[in-house]
Formats: sequence, C-alpha cells, structure tokens
Amino acid sequence: MTTAPKKRGTEILYGLIAEARGYPDAIILGRGDPDFDTPASIIDAGQEAMTREEASPSAGLLPLRQAIAERVKRVNGIDVDPETEVIVTNGGQEALFLMVIATITAGDEVIIPEPNYNTYRDAIIFAGGVPVGIVTDPNEAFRVVPERVREAITPKTRALLLVSPNNPAASVISREDQLALLAIAQEHDLIIIADDIYDLLTYDGIEHVSPASLPGGKARTLTLNALSKTYAMTGWRAGWIIGPADLMAVVLRHKEAISGPASLATQYAMLAALTGPQADMEAMRETYIRRRRVVLDIVDAMGLPFGTPQGGQFVFIDISGTGRTSLDLAQEILTEQHVLAYPGGAFSEAMNGFIRVTFLQPEEKLREGLEKVKRVIDRVMA
Amino acid sequence: MTTAPKKRGTEILYGLIAEARGYPDAIILGRGDPDFDTPASIIDAGQEAMTREEASPSAGLLPLRQAIAERVKRVNGIDVDPETEVIVTNGGQEALFLMVIATITAGDEVIIPEPNYNTYRDAIIFAGGVPVGIVTDPNEAFRVVPERVREAITPKTRALLLVSPNNPAASVISREDQLALLAIAQEHDLIIIADDIYDLLTYDGIEHVSPASLPGGKARTLTLNALSKTYAMTGWRAGWIIGPADLMAVVLRHKEAISGPASLATQYAMLAALTGPQADMEAMRETYIRRRRVVLDIVDAMGLPFGTPQGGQFVFIDISGTGRTSLDLAQEILTEQHVLAYPGGAFSEAMNGFIRVTFLQPEEKLREGLEKVKRVIDRVMA
Repeated sequence: MTTAPKKRGTEILYGLIAEARGYPDAIILGRGDPDFDTPASIIDAGQEAMTREEASPSAGLLPLRQAIAERVKRVNGIDVDPETEVIVTNGGQEALFLMVIATITAGDEVIIPEPNYNTYRDAIIFAGGVPVGIVTDPNEAFRVVPERVREAITPKTRALLLVSPNNPAASVISREDQLALLAIAQEHDLIIIADDIYDLLTYDGIEHVSPASLPGGKARTLTLNALSKTYAMTGWRAGWIIGPADLMAVVLRHKEAISGPASLATQYAMLAALTGPQADMEAMRETYIRRRRVVLDIVDAMGLPFGTPQGGQFVFIDISGTGRTSLDLAQEILTEQHVLAYPGGAFSEAMNGFIRVTFLQPEEKLREGLEKVKRVIDRVMA
Repeated sequence: MTTAPKKRGTEILYGLIAEARGYPDAIILGRGDPDFDTPASIIDAGQEAMTREEASPSAGLLPLRQAIAERVKRVNGIDVDPETEVIVTNGGQEALFLMVIATITAGDEVIIPEPNYNTYRDAIIFAGGVPVGIVTDPNEAFRVVPERVREAITPKTRALLLVSPNNPAASVISREDQLALLAIAQEHDLIIIADDIYDLLTYDGIEHVSPASLPGGKARTLTLNALSKTYAMTGWRAGWIIGPADLMAVVLRHKEAISGPASLATQYAMLAALTGPQADMEAMRETYIRRRRVVLDIVDAMGLPFGTPQGGQFVFIDISGTGRTSLDLAQEILTEQHVLAYPGGAFSEAMNGFIRVTFLQPEEKLREGLEKVKRVIDRVMA
C-alpha cells in the first residue's frame, strides 16, 4: 500500500517554497538547508580548485574517493575500495536517483517506510518501479517494524529503503532492528538502499547504525551520504554513493550517461571538508543540539504532541488535534504568518496530521517563527 | 539501422583515457576539454558565490536564466521565457540526458545521424528507446540528408537528433537543410533534439542555424548548450536546455527528481561568463582558428584525407588507407607514442575508418602529437 498524496509531494513543497520567496519577512522552518555559512577552509579549497586544469573521471577524483572511503570506515564502520566502490554525485539528490535506477527495473517493487523524503517515490516511479509504502506509527516512534516489512514482501520486491535518521519523522533505526531488517533482506535477496545523510546528527546518545556495516550487509547495500547537512554545504551539491563493486559498476554506467563527473570545485571542497579541521562542523552540531532543545520546549508549551527527534534537524509535530489537514494548516501558517513549515501530507497521505519544523535558524528566529505558528494554531483551535 | 560498436563507445573512450592518464608524457588529442584556463572574471564570480547563502530553484537562478534567454536570443535568434523555458543543468551531459528522457518513452525511435557523441545512444537506450542511426557520408561532407531522415521514419519515430556543428565529424547543417529537416519533423510530428554546443565555433564564414530559430521550430525543439567549450569551463559542469514551456515542464519534473539545482558557484560563474567581458572568449576562438589551420596543414602533409572541419574543435581524419580499424590504430598510437586520439569506431561502427584529433593543445604540442601519430601511420603503411 502506498499512500502518496494525490498532488505529487515534491510539487506541493516547491509551491510552498515559491510562495515563501515572495515574503520579505518569511521565516523558513521548512526547507532542510542549514543557515550556517560553509566553513572557510572548505570555501578556500573550492576557490583554489577553480583555477585547476584537471579532468575528473565520472566517479570523481581518486583522492576524494579515498577520503570518502576513510570517512565511511571511521564514522560508519564500512570498508570500501575507493577505486571501485565509491562514486561522487551531484548532491544527495542525484545519489538517491542513481541508487534507485541502478537497483530496479520496470515492475520491481521497493518497500519504503513512510513518511519519507518524497523524491524517493519520484525516482522509483521514474524507473518504472512500484513504491510499496509501509506506514510507520507515531505511537511506536515511527519505528520501521521488521515484521511489517516482511509482510509487504512479494515475489516482485527488489529493494528496501532505509533512511535513518529518518526525514521527516526524525526517528532512528536501532541496531537490533537493522539486524532484523538485514536478515529479511538476505532471506528474500533484497537490495538495501540506505540513506545515511543525517548519520552524524543523532541526539541523546542514540547510536546510528549503517546496514552496510553489519555482517553480510555491504554485499547488498547501496549507501548514500552528502555534506549539505553536516557541513552546511547545500548549494555545493556534494554527495556520494558507496556499495559493493558489482552494484557500483551499474551505478557508474548510469552516472556516465546521466551527468558525468561532479564539478571540480565542489570535489575539492568536499575533500577539504572531509580531511580538514572538523571544529566548525562540531560547533554546528552543538548548536543543533541546543536549538532542538529550544524547539522542543516551545512545542511542548504549545500543548501539541510530537515525536522526540532522535536524529536529523527537525521535529515532526502532531497537529491532528487542530482538525486541519497538514496541507491546509501549512498553507494558512505561510499565508497568514509568512512562516514556512512543511506539511506531513506532502511526504505521505498517512502523515497529514503532522507538520515538520526544522531547527535551521538562529534561536531568536526559531522562537519568532514558532510564536507565529502558535498564533495560527491558537486561532484554529479556539 | 544503428551501427553502435559492440563494446559501448563510451567504455572504449574511457578505457583509452584511463590508459593515457598513466603516461606522464601523454599528449591528449582526444578529449574535448579546452586547454585554456577559465577566464579570471568567471573564476572571480564563482569564488564570490561560494560565500552566498541562497537556495536555487531546480531550474536554476532566475538572473542566470534571464542571461541565458538573452544569449540564445542574441546568438541563436531564439525567443524564450526565462521563467518557464530555460533550465540550468549539470553540464551538457545532463542536458542531453534530460532532453532524451523528457522526449521519449519505451519503444520510441530516435533518429540519430552518425557519427555522433555516443552518450546520446546511451541515453536513448537508458530511456527504453531505440536509436535509429543514419550514417552520413564522408564523401558528402557528413551532410545530414533530409531525404534519408524521411526514409528512416516509422510510426514509432518520436524525435530527431541534430548536432551542428557535429561532434566528431565537424560538419555543420546548412540553413536549407535545417528548414527541410524541420518540415519533415512538422509533417511527422517529431521533436527535434538540438545540440548547439559548438554554435560559436564555426569556420570560414559558415553560418550556424538553430532549428528553434526557424518559423515553427521552437514549438517542437529542445536545444542544449554548455559553456565548457566556448568559455573553457569543462570542470564546472555548466549547461542548459531551452525549449517550449510544455516540454520544459516535463524536463523540469525530471530535473527535480534526478539532481535538483546545479551548484551555486557554477551558476554564478555562468552568469559572469554570459554577462561579463567577452574578450577572453574571443581570443580563445581566434586561437582555435589558427590551430585548426596548423592541424589541417600537418594532416594534409601526412597524405591522409580528412573532412575540412566547418565547426567544432577537431578534425576527423580518414585512416582507412592504413588498413587498420580506428580502434586498433588509436590503441597503437596511444600505447606506442602516448598520444590519445579518439577512434571513429567508438562513435559509430560505420566510422571505423576515422580518428578524431582535437586542437585543444598549444601549437607546439599539436605539432609534436601529430608528428608522433605520423610515425605510427608511416610504420603501418610502410
């Protein structure tokens, strides 16, 4: 069962973003773009690279692929060969698209826990595949229950999408569940499409576990990551995919046909980000922790239920008590108060009782934005 | 009839490039990457942009789309609305891919004059389409003969690819032929996929004509361009597509799903390239004209026939008299002399009697490289 919104979720979000652009006083609690500047050492490397004369292979520059291999070993516990098991992409978006098209052919089913970042569904449909949604339950902290994944498997199931920390629900898949999900994938010969983009952003001591780091996991897992969130590099389009050589050869063939190598400046900036000083990134991380606390306190004071975010950069707030759908409420909040929050309904019809609020603004902006959200909610519930 | 090489052309070329990378003294007469530095004003703009906090729409920044609209009006005589008829892409490669997938669905045939840059075939096959090759004749200066296009049309034909100046044959489609080809496209309701990437690089007073500039042309034409060749911006991945709003809406939907916006730095660099001083670009153009003369004189002295390049940055040399296939000869030239020239056979089996030599090296390197090519040819023909 898939519960895609009738209007494509991506279109709904782009529509809201376009309207928000028209308000000079807009407060953006919607988009997932960090408000921090890209750290100076990264910018320096990108600027320096602009004067280089160099042709990159489609997979990306080898020193960068080596730095990525070291990073995923250190952070995620995954061993990859930089020559054949790492591909640099035009951001997480292209990584996501390549993973999907390299994995499935027309008619294949992909199990996707909902809610999720809806371009996954777009990519699956693009490839002629069938997204099979598993709606996770707010009352179970949006847990991806292995038994429900198993029940959704048919002879046509080819792949399982695992996004942890999840966007927009901010839930994290536990080690135990990752092991159970991998066992199911092994049993039914499924590819795991893993999105690790928020792997460094978990809270309260929650552990992030990459499926590819588990015994037997790497052979059937493609894992994406990108530096946009953790290094404030959204505009750079800095992403990658890692995986076993056989699957990565297919990814590379598609990468060559679709776009060729990523921009040189971005690649050198990525190299600097991964190998240079990490203090800026650590400072951003600590700021997110503080802001998250601020947002949770305010939302709590509003009297609205929410799932405590285990990871990511957002809170998924239950607005079902307002009697409005999330699509309507987000529209009212934007038009009346010029605050952009994302409707859960754009991610999954089953999530039309939630809105997503990011903490990618300074604390005073977060307070101001949430105060304005509260005005709408107070009026609606009055 | 398609005459794709048995091993994918792209793979053959990547294999040669990889081998050439291993020779410290390699002379690259293969790849189409200009040897010039990106002009300083463009680099400055890209560097400055790296500190900007800005989110680009997937179609690209509006000021850049406006600059592109002005450029295609001025250079190509095409009127487009920057809001709905221009999309910025990750280089010409992504533009090409997007044009193909936005145009065809599984089973559709696309007529592609051969030889051509072979990732077109890759993209068509990716989309489930059928590339239908029309082999152009060296004895007719690789002319795309309208009558032969007409003969290749079936009820399944959906699109016609027109690359002018052509890569690798360096031929240019005349106004008369463009008009005849457009009339055929109108008669059979075909989309024209036009590749204008070398539009500023024509020689001997040859005119470049964009199909979209002709009466009735724009409504059925998607046109790509990129700044890699004319502004020495290969590593930047700076391309675009223009076309009628209805087709461009489909392109945009795919662009959103595949990769989202191009990097901000690249977009601002493109804006500077299009709106800034054009002196560097003009100087490069004049250098190409001089180098082309040098290459033609040397190849002439070798006693090998060649099609005089009407446009582009390369000469397509007839090596059929050597008795070698182009694949074998290019391999010998590379392994023995460390000179990379591209085999025509990687572009089309029908072109296995040609090699492509670019003039993207300083004159002394061109002379040295061609002297080494001559050594192999002299030995082979002795």
